[in-house]
Amino acid sequence: MPETIPADSVGLVTPITLHIDSPLLLDCGRSLPSYNLIYETYGELNSDASNAVLICHALSGDHHAAGYHSMEDKKPGWWDSAIGPDKAIDTNHLFVVSMNNLGGCKGSTGPTSINPETGKRYGPDFPIVTVPDWVNSQAVLADELNIQQWAAVVGGSLGAMQAMQWAISLPDRIKHALIIASAPKLSAQNIAFNEVARTAIKSDPNFHEGYYSEHDTLPRQGLGLARMLGHITYLSDEAMGAKFGRELRNETLNYDYGVEFQIESYLRYQSINFVERFDANTYLLMTKALDYFDPAKEFNDDLAATVASIEAKSLVISFTSDWRFSPERSQEIVDALLSAGKEVTYAEIEANQGHDAFLMPIPRYIEIMTIYMKQVIADSELS
Amino acid sequence: MPETIPADSVGLVTPITLHIDSPLLLDCGRSLPSYNLIYETYGELNSDASNAVLICHALSGDHHAAGYHSMEDKKPGWWDSAIGPDKAIDTNHLFVVSMNNLGGCKGSTGPTSINPETGKRYGPDFPIVTVPDWVNSQAVLADELNIQQWAAVVGGSLGAMQAMQWAISLPDRIKHALIIASAPKLSAQNIAFNEVARTAIKSDPNFHEGYYSEHDTLPRQGLGLARMLGHITYLSDEAMGAKFGRELRNETLNYDYGVEFQIESYLRYQSINFVERFDANTYLLMTKALDYFDPAKEFNDDLAATVASIEAKSLVISFTSDWRFSPERSQEIVDALLSAGKEVTYAEIEANQGHDAFLMPIPRYIEIMTIYMKQVIADSELS
Repeated sequence: MPETIPADSVGLVTPITLHIDSPLLLDCGRSLPSYNLIYETYGELNSDASNAVLICHALSGDHHAAGYHSMEDKKPGWWDSAIGPDKAIDTNHLFVVSMNNLGGCKGSTGPTSINPETGKRYGPDFPIVTVPDWVNSQAVLADELNIQQWAAVVGGSLGAMQAMQWAISLPDRIKHALIIASAPKLSAQNIAFNEVARTAIKSDPNFHEGYYSEHDTLPRQGLGLARMLGHITYLSDEAMGAKFGRELRNETLNYDYGVEFQIESYLRYQSINFVERFDANTYLLMTKALDYFDPAKEFNDDLAATVASIEAKSLVISFTSDWRFSPERSQEIVDALLSAGKEVTYAEIEANQGHDAFLMPIPRYIEIMTIYMKQVIADSELS
Repeated sequence: MPETIPADSVGLVTPITLHIDSPLLLDCGRSLPSYNLIYETYGELNSDASNAVLICHALSGDHHAAGYHSMEDKKPGWWDSAIGPDKAIDTNHLFVVSMNNLGGCKGSTGPTSINPETGKRYGPDFPIVTVPDWVNSQAVLADELNIQQWAAVVGGSLGAMQAMQWAISLPDRIKHALIIASAPKLSAQNIAFNEVARTAIKSDPNFHEGYYSEHDTLPRQGLGLARMLGHITYLSDEAMGAKFGRELRNETLNYDYGVEFQIESYLRYQSINFVERFDANTYLLMTKALDYFDPAKEFNDDLAATVASIEAKSLVISFTSDWRFSPERSQEIVDALLSAGKEVTYAEIEANQGHDAFLMPIPRYIEIMTIYMKQVIADSELS
């Protein structure tokens, strides 16, 4: 816990819940008649509302991106290394908005919320939401905050897909897109890993077709397995090797089916920890949103045509050891933007942390983002 | 089913079961008081027993490497593309031996066998066996067949680890080692994937701590999950992309948690298919044998020192798209052999099939093996 809040922190923050009473039509054809969006803001919105930055979270993220909820918090928000006064996303100049996505489990309406039509939790009946649906819901929030145009929309991984979708769907409402550690669509291998995770959750006998809360239980084993597997794909072989190698948990081998190696112990810990803080139906939904993301599908798989409508400038960043969304996948986005005559900056960061690198304060990464965000600030002051 | 047996097939083969009544001491400290080894042979042993080749199988392989068990067989043995008259491992010249490993589930003593001490199946009480244990049991078979020295020991993946171990442990009993698609030890990531597979099996409510046969059930879900995950690691992203891409199962998206993409359907099929033909306790045991394999451990992690005792010549082969045991891992073996002054040939095969490439008739791969095996035949005729 921070005895005192660090000087470069956004400090103590309080999430705000916005209730929306008009329906949101979703890609799946269903609508949410009403819903809550929980969000946090850091910094001050300027008088012409030109300095607002939207942070989009990835699979297991939420609205708490920076600062602390209380003096008892052990850790700040998930991207505190990038957001704060004098940090890359500088809250001395920018008004940062971070929202929990619909379908989430941290306060925005999702499977754990009460379905107003039944008086019971949605559970598995919560509709599948897509990246374009999230963009639409984020636009509702922007409207409520009187933000006509984002100075930037920023995200990593699934968050970057939202930044890309903003630029494609609502070109006049976004000046810059920061697309970090992402891909224009999932590969068969990416989908395959998601399907294993989903199968693990769904085959847990405590899953009860998603109605586990009505059975007062949780599919801990299945969700834990999904998290273990996810964790392997977020890290690189190299990073795991550097951190754990073949280190044993005890001095000698046991020759049994218990834990022998530290990496096994670490994965078990990660899985137990995650199960307590995340909802299995939300996990399923997030993996589906990933699978479905494919903006070029409507454009005959022509990514350059897909991004032709974009007005925003883009910064695309990838990490050398990211094998979930490798640099080649980011380069597909860059190539499409260039083909379409768009302004794009690309940086491939040497990093051994795998996909998770996008969450880490890697000097060259933070430096590039800082320089780019200075341009975002300058552009926001022009308008 | 083959209406007629192809001319380049070893033809109809019948497995042979050898019962050994003297105990085998295992690495774990326990012994098997007696055990069965099931094996097949192809070709004829020459008069001085100098033309014998041992084929070692990988995780889910068995003794049926080539030919057909009956005219009704739909498929030949698992490595029929490499073993037969005029094939790379040429049965016109060589006597090929292929054994199901101890701990397996296809006829050699393993978890599904009856424990003579209890009259019940071993199940989870079957001792964990290691790669060195397998080499020792294969040496018992060699003794029975009066084979003092193998012309070659050949394997891919976990099979290659056995070939390597033969060369290290029993240097005067092996002339050539063919080490294909392998690694000198598992990385933390390799172990992590194995641990997810094991956790899936062990957390299946039908696992019953491994005593599922006593409950007349099978941990289908868990073993199926393990297989799905294994399958992803055996294929490359590229191969999956080429085979399935983002192809949908139906024409339109369902926006539900069922199968949307062909890759999901394929993985489900693979998993259902596997569960019917493989034992979960054997799967656990095989993954442990992989985890434990680390011959350099006794040599202070010095792989060159580990291979210093080797008298065999080696052929090491890797495949460009194999990310389970990448070419870099094979190069570690090559570097160690070269440092130790051993004779080694190395080939990195351009192939997009991932780890599974070692099972496939890729022209350059088969050609290199064929050329190398001609030297093995020549060397065997010299002795």
